[in-house]
Amino acid sequence: MLTPSTEVGFIERLTSALPRSPRQLNALQESDAEIITVPGILSGRIAITIDTIAEEIRSGLYADPWLVGWMSVMANMSDLAAVGADPVGILVSESIPPHFPQDALARLQQGIADACRACGTFVLGGDTNEAAELSITGCALGMTADGHLLKRKGCRAGDVLYCSGPLGAGNAYAFAMLTSGKDGGIIYRPHARLREGQLVRAYASACMDTSDGVISTIDQLMRTNGLGFALESGWEKALDGPSRDLIRKACIPEWLLLAGLHGEFELLFTIPPGQQSDFDTAAASMGWFPGNIGHVLESQHLTLSEAEGVTVIDTGSLRNLGQTAALDFQAYLKNLLAFDRSAG
Amino acid sequence: MLTPSTEVGFIERLTSALPRSPRQLNALQESDAEIITVPGILSGRIAITIDTIAEEIRSGLYADPWLVGWMSVMANMSDLAAVGADPVGILVSESIPPHFPQDALARLQQGIADACRACGTFVLGGDTNEAAELSITGCALGMTADGHLLKRKGCRAGDVLYCSGPLGAGNAYAFAMLTSGKDGGIIYRPHARLREGQLVRAYASACMDTSDGVISTIDQLMRTNGLGFALESGWEKALDGPSRDLIRKACIPEWLLLAGLHGEFELLFTIPPGQQSDFDTAAASMGWFPGNIGHVLESQHLTLSEAEGVTVIDTGSLRNLGQTAALDFQAYLKNLLAFDRSAG
Repeated sequence: MLTPSTEVGFIERLTSALPRSPRQLNALQESDAEIITVPGILSGRIAITIDTIAEEIRSGLYADPWLVGWMSVMANMSDLAAVGADPVGILVSESIPPHFPQDALARLQQGIADACRACGTFVLGGDTNEAAELSITGCALGMTADGHLLKRKGCRAGDVLYCSGPLGAGNAYAFAMLTSGKDGGIIYRPHARLREGQLVRAYASACMDTSDGVISTIDQLMRTNGLGFALESGWEKALDGPSRDLIRKACIPEWLLLAGLHGEFELLFTIPPGQQSDFDTAAASMGWFPGNIGHVLESQHLTLSEAEGVTVIDTGSLRNLGQTAALDFQAYLKNLLAFDRSAG
Repeated sequence: MLTPSTEVGFIERLTSALPRSPRQLNALQESDAEIITVPGILSGRIAITIDTIAEEIRSGLYADPWLVGWMSVMANMSDLAAVGADPVGILVSESIPPHFPQDALARLQQGIADACRACGTFVLGGDTNEAAELSITGCALGMTADGHLLKRKGCRAGDVLYCSGPLGAGNAYAFAMLTSGKDGGIIYRPHARLREGQLVRAYASACMDTSDGVISTIDQLMRTNGLGFALESGWEKALDGPSRDLIRKACIPEWLLLAGLHGEFELLFTIPPGQQSDFDTAAASMGWFPGNIGHVLESQHLTLSEAEGVTVIDTGSLRNLGQTAALDFQAYLKNLLAFDRSAG
């Protein structure tokens, strides 16, 4: 991934030369995985997605090869989770530098194997290349029994915003790694929400994973749907505990755990109010208690409720700040803190 | 791709930690695309494949970004052709260096678009990353109406060996580019043999594309099937005309157009003798006249008929020579020529 703001515009330019398949049911940026009608499939459609782990390795964020392997599977599985698909499997292409240590390679493979096992899926095939830098591309295929798949698009004003699990570990981990080279005690091991996504599928009006962080995800949902979001008081309870502690100690405002661009791969989804009670019951019956953190607004902006009052977050400016993130983390952090002061 | 000999062993090591899907119908190295049973598909199975173009860019072989784009699609489509599948589409992940020129990027996208159009297929989705070096990964999905897909495995002694089209342009092009930095008048623009593969599917006992060159492909077919091959006198007629001329001028023996590792992405396939007449008729009726270049042998070696007599080619040694190819083309060429003298 590039930073989301750079990537969205870049992808639009890249794809302008490419005709779109008549079999494709989602428009550009409209779902986490591509939704394709395929003749001869009883359910009518498949979900397929591709994701490369490269910049996270370059920047030093994924220093452990095991994490590289784990994330190369999980990032793709999380896309399938966000559309509510059941994985058929994943293909993995590995670009490996010459003289890459054997034990590091073994750890990388173990990360791939562990992530597949955790998702109940398999590596179906792959490719290997020699390259200057390590990078791994996964491509995952998924299906559902009835062909119903979730998109980012479809929510309406008043729908309730949920998150599938604790938020902020991605950014707390990035903060720790990129300022100290150590993880600061943050266990960053996202687990694609496949089971949850398959339940969400039956109730939600829209869904997207937080692979680029929470506010970046909300920003995309805002643009795709032409609507806004309110993060209501109490959203802090959805924050990951150790991440909150780490950030507090560093005197960084908590909401910046949502603003950074390194995601936690949870799902953000919207449930129409009429479905909320049934959804809550169904989730609880599988032992899952997703956080209700806000709701969808008619007007296209993001509001954040804090003890001091309600702030409107300029998500466009946050996107633009992101352009510096990959190049210079310290500068990015400084800009984020300045953004916080100007917003507050 | 790594050189085939390096890659086969490397992939075996890499995959040793990865459990294999019970849905996978092909063993490792047994088919060009992965063949997967998927519940809910009328035909029962899909074909899926992943391929990264990186080393061909690093080595200077694909100097034109258009060719990079074209090949990132064609290499994957050729894998689908080799199993006889009809493409559903392709996903493309692009790793692009910072400050990559806009016009080069536009040419690259044009290559992708042109290749898709030529194959009657579409880019379904993608990802973009910033990286030190340009590389492109494609992942293509295919199906057939009845689920029958070809493997590399299945031929028997006596089966007739065919090639789908002219051989040697990949190696002639590589020779020209890597010795002079120019293409020497060789037009290298492989076109995945999708239509042909779908016909071959109904008749062939085994099929594989020549992405790593002809002898490397035969070597893999030999190992997979535990059988040998004879290239019969007249095989030279299957050589690409301009490639033959270029090589002759350079005083390089013609058979080395089969021995190099840069392939032409034709299909090599075997037809049981009882099917040959029907196959020839069906091929001719679509205006296609594939070359009959040899047959399958009981004993596991490759023989090559030339004017001077029949030579047994030590394909294992040729594989080992390949390990130097990516590092030092001049040394590789010297070794190939020495190999020719020792074989002759």
